[in-house]
Amino acid sequence: MSKFAILGHGVVGSGTAELFLKNKDNINKRQGTDIDLKYILDIRDFPDSPYAEKFVKDINVILEDDEVTVVAECMGGINPAYTFVKSCLERGKSVCTSNKQLVAEKGAELHAVAKANNCNFMFEASTGGAIPILRPLHTCLAANEITAIAGILNGTTNFILTKMIEENMTFDAALTMAQQLGYAEKDPTADVEGHDACRKICILASLAFGSHVYPQWVYTEGISSVTLEDAAYATSANSAVKLIGSVWKLKNGKLLISVRPCFVCRSCQLALIDDVFNGIMVCGDGIDRVMFYGRGAGKLPTASAVLGDVIDCFKQTGTVMSQTWEDSRSSSFIEDHLNAEVRMYVRLDGVSRETAEKLFPGSVYLDREGKPESELAFITTYMLEKDIIHNLNSLGSAVLGKMPLLDM
Amino acid sequence: MSKFAILGHGVVGSGTAELFLKNKDNINKRQGTDIDLKYILDIRDFPDSPYAEKFVKDINVILEDDEVTVVAECMGGINPAYTFVKSCLERGKSVCTSNKQLVAEKGAELHAVAKANNCNFMFEASTGGAIPILRPLHTCLAANEITAIAGILNGTTNFILTKMIEENMTFDAALTMAQQLGYAEKDPTADVEGHDACRKICILASLAFGSHVYPQWVYTEGISSVTLEDAAYATSANSAVKLIGSVWKLKNGKLLISVRPCFVCRSCQLALIDDVFNGIMVCGDGIDRVMFYGRGAGKLPTASAVLGDVIDCFKQTGTVMSQTWEDSRSSSFIEDHLNAEVRMYVRLDGVSRETAEKLFPGSVYLDREGKPESELAFITTYMLEKDIIHNLNSLGSAVLGKMPLLDM
Repeated sequence: MSKFAILGHGVVGSGTAELFLKNKDNINKRQGTDIDLKYILDIRDFPDSPYAEKFVKDINVILEDDEVTVVAECMGGINPAYTFVKSCLERGKSVCTSNKQLVAEKGAELHAVAKANNCNFMFEASTGGAIPILRPLHTCLAANEITAIAGILNGTTNFILTKMIEENMTFDAALTMAQQLGYAEKDPTADVEGHDACRKICILASLAFGSHVYPQWVYTEGISSVTLEDAAYATSANSAVKLIGSVWKLKNGKLLISVRPCFVCRSCQLALIDDVFNGIMVCGDGIDRVMFYGRGAGKLPTASAVLGDVIDCFKQTGTVMSQTWEDSRSSSFIEDHLNAEVRMYVRLDGVSRETAEKLFPGSVYLDREGKPESELAFITTYMLEKDIIHNLNSLGSAVLGKMPLLDM
Repeated sequence: MSKFAILGHGVVGSGTAELFLKNKDNINKRQGTDIDLKYILDIRDFPDSPYAEKFVKDINVILEDDEVTVVAECMGGINPAYTFVKSCLERGKSVCTSNKQLVAEKGAELHAVAKANNCNFMFEASTGGAIPILRPLHTCLAANEITAIAGILNGTTNFILTKMIEENMTFDAALTMAQQLGYAEKDPTADVEGHDACRKICILASLAFGSHVYPQWVYTEGISSVTLEDAAYATSANSAVKLIGSVWKLKNGKLLISVRPCFVCRSCQLALIDDVFNGIMVCGDGIDRVMFYGRGAGKLPTASAVLGDVIDCFKQTGTVMSQTWEDSRSSSFIEDHLNAEVRMYVRLDGVSRETAEKLFPGSVYLDREGKPESELAFITTYMLEKDIIHNLNSLGSAVLGKMPLLDM
């Protein structure tokens, strides 16, 4: 009998127990395994739970039980999750986690601990929720040189942007609605300011390119400054405004990585992903491009990904070598986004077309319903972002909005 | 050193050699492997090939070389691919194939041979080209009860339908264009009549539900009878005509499986997949729904999938138990599509609305530009398909077109 434990009985942890116990017999039959859930760790009491006998409050019960060889960490946050996960790995117990903060900040270290103890640290659920992305990336796509990854990695912000684009709701109204529906937290900062998406693109970049990318190295912009006017101009340019986390392998060998709102042309599949759904596009020299789509969060979708890892751990005989990355001591392999060429959407107030043409020659001008006489909106040709910023700075408060075009 | 051989040096076989030799060093570094290509089997001569020394004409050279532990079969067709693959598996050599006909017709048998010889029979490239779908299905999604799979599984027909919908081209003109671009064969029957998509939905259904579904058990309709009028009515119903291969697990335990053109509502991601791209939607009790998108054919995309399997085979220590299905002696687990409830789009000529309402009460009527007075088009409520057919038969030659709505 192969036993596992779940750390945490919140949304994801309780979903993981529920989905496993519902489908246990079929899972074991199909997979040729004999897996069972032995413990659930939580400091709270759940006397009415149908599996109340599985609850423990002391991590040492799990650490010291040799029958438990796999642990699912669904607590979230760094402490005490980090200590618990490291202790499990040090005892040779594989860990599967849904904790993107833990992976983004401690992934390289925990990988190394797993390797040293001949077990596995897996985290499919940390990125894209239900969407299979990490395992396909290092197995199915293993023959490719990955050139770029770009995705809608946060469902809350995609819901807000969809409401702004489709229903002309303001950012504030859409955020309130997201909170009422339970899609956004009371304090929505981590979602709205792009920190959540940042952690996920860090995980994708680290896995795809083999060196740990820390969140503080990633240029991150949220969506709180996106306006209905920006959304209208995007529509007029056959595009949609999306919060895109992306990483590109540049010719100079460096990574260009950012999280920021972008104009995404409707000929790109990512522009068509609405509401709380996530989508991740991967480009490589063999595949051209593939995209993965689904629910990026939620109780059972995330539980599905945690359990996929748990089942896989029981089938592995040692460390999976291909799912790993090295630690990186400096950010020298990350390119400053200001040094990259982009096409930029720009919205100005009280600037003459003549002035705009001098600063941004060859731009494509945009229109929208109800455009005031004094407003000017356009998409630049390819320019270094630092030159664009320099030119916009010369216009001071006349700059009402800007965002780059996603170029895939 | 781990050595593999490629059978066949056509489009897919040569792509597999090319992509592997280009990325070999990085693959081995990232995966912690030491893989090399030893032989390419082809009856033709390739004296100018940069790896001319690898070519052999006799399968026995490969069969008898113990250093070759994995074989990539890229020949296509049943003979001699079937004999070669079986001989390889019998000697304990794992086989990775892009050959959907072989998998759809002989999958259960070849699985059993692989299992008996402690090696693997893998076929990611047989379905969805570059798109990772089969491995995610039996690994990442392993905790789910799969309830349905529906996909655009053939790029040629999707290209033709896209041209009909977007550019108002006739079926014949779009087919000619597809042939000129190399997307369609001179004899386009296998694509256009749905046989290619049928093989792929058989593979998906067999893997997801564990019993071999043979192509001759699947209700299959092609796209040659789809008209521009049908496409226009689909647009007016906020839908697109797509050739959909689908399988549903019914409450009675049977599988409902078909390949046929459908109206797909634009709120479903599958409606948004255009040109030669493929997309496969999987529904399950944990994930809700996930979709996989990418190039379903082509030299390097298919090679990427073959090599993903080859690399995985070298990392496996024995048979992968979860990727298997049992043979099935009868089709009794397949539900007759006529016994299922559907909503059907219907186009009639010279039938009064009164008559139509009597036969199909509660239908939603459709309009299109240039609709003749005598034409009537509508979407029925849910009815048993056999009742719909019975009613339509009573109208004889007045029936100009019909197709079901995809209900996902």
